[in-house]
Amino acid sequence: MSVLDFWFDFASSYSYPAAMRVGPLAAKAGVSIRFRPFLLAPIFKAQGWSTSPFNIYEAKGRNMWRDLERQCAALGLPFRRPDPFPQPSLLAARVALVGLSEAWGEDFCRSVFSAEFGEGRRIDDVATIASILGELASDPDQVLAAARSDPIKARLRDETQEAEGLGIFGAPSFVTRDGELFWGNDRMEQALQWASRRS
Amino acid sequence: MSVLDFWFDFASSYSYPAAMRVGPLAAKAGVSIRFRPFLLAPIFKAQGWSTSPFNIYEAKGRNMWRDLERQCAALGLPFRRPDPFPQPSLLAARVALVGLSEAWGEDFCRSVFSAEFGEGRRIDDVATIASILGELASDPDQVLAAARSDPIKARLRDETQEAEGLGIFGAPSFVTRDGELFWGNDRMEQALQWASRRS
Repeated sequence: MSVLDFWFDFASSYSYPAAMRVGPLAAKAGVSIRFRPFLLAPIFKAQGWSTSPFNIYEAKGRNMWRDLERQCAALGLPFRRPDPFPQPSLLAARVALVGLSEAWGEDFCRSVFSAEFGEGRRIDDVATIASILGELASDPDQVLAAARSDPIKARLRDETQEAEGLGIFGAPSFVTRDGELFWGNDRMEQALQWASRRS
Repeated sequence: MSVLDFWFDFASSYSYPAAMRVGPLAAKAGVSIRFRPFLLAPIFKAQGWSTSPFNIYEAKGRNMWRDLERQCAALGLPFRRPDPFPQPSLLAARVALVGLSEAWGEDFCRSVFSAEFGEGRRIDDVATIASILGELASDPDQVLAAARSDPIKARLRDETQEAEGLGIFGAPSFVTRDGELFWGNDRMEQALQWASRRS
């Protein structure tokens, strides 16, 4: 079966519809998706940005929120603009790495995106993450402890470095096994097609 | 009939497939398209950019060229990366404004994009513009003179100011009569749908 890496940051607005869409579309395309959480902030910092470009460039940001609202409406996804934006995504990303080596990782990712962009909850609040874990993991406290362990911290740094090495500059991004990079929720279908053609 | 404004800059890479696609898609959607050439450079300058962001942000630029190549291949459009990029688009935009008040404007726009992104010709070279006009206008010299007249110069400045006032920050962009802004070649279908729903 062909494989496609789905790189995302929990802070990234278009990663929300991407995370909600990717499962069914990948199943239909016969492609196996690997969820790859990483942190955009260090990559943005290397480009000279201390926050999201959507905050730096006002007209671009205004269009993004309106566009995301339209996209979510078309997909039947609830939408609430998170405040603040971007949300610090470090904790969620670390917990996701724990979960993705167990069975509940992808559900956790979708739940975090729903909480953040569907309900306007803060994902840098441990209570939000703990309540999501309460639905999914047998021992939330143990997961939170694992998420704060050195191996997981190092793992997230490594993942972020790998993303940067692949040429990733935004999220979501899709990378095929032969290194083809597709950027954005809008390129998901094309990325899946590319991956399935080369299996 | 409903109307949709198609805002583009001849220097803009994704304006190329947009210009080639928009006619047939608009006809199918029953929407009347108005070609609105403008200049992105002053808008970029106001954002602090002295050139295209695709030149400033290397990874973003690398992805854009690869993505455009894939998009053109999928559409069956020839593609050659213009050098230099972006091409100065002032002359082409002024000539287009002349043409769009006559019958040959849209053909001229498509020919300029084809020359630039399909054949790698320089659109800031008067010879390129004159040779395109030779196929379309009865008196190319008269058109070039009109393009350099004060009313056309002022008109292009006004158009660019109108674009900025509409919240346009990149090209191509689509704006409906009720002020809804859609950014990018990827949003053409949605913009047409929006325009046709509200006719």
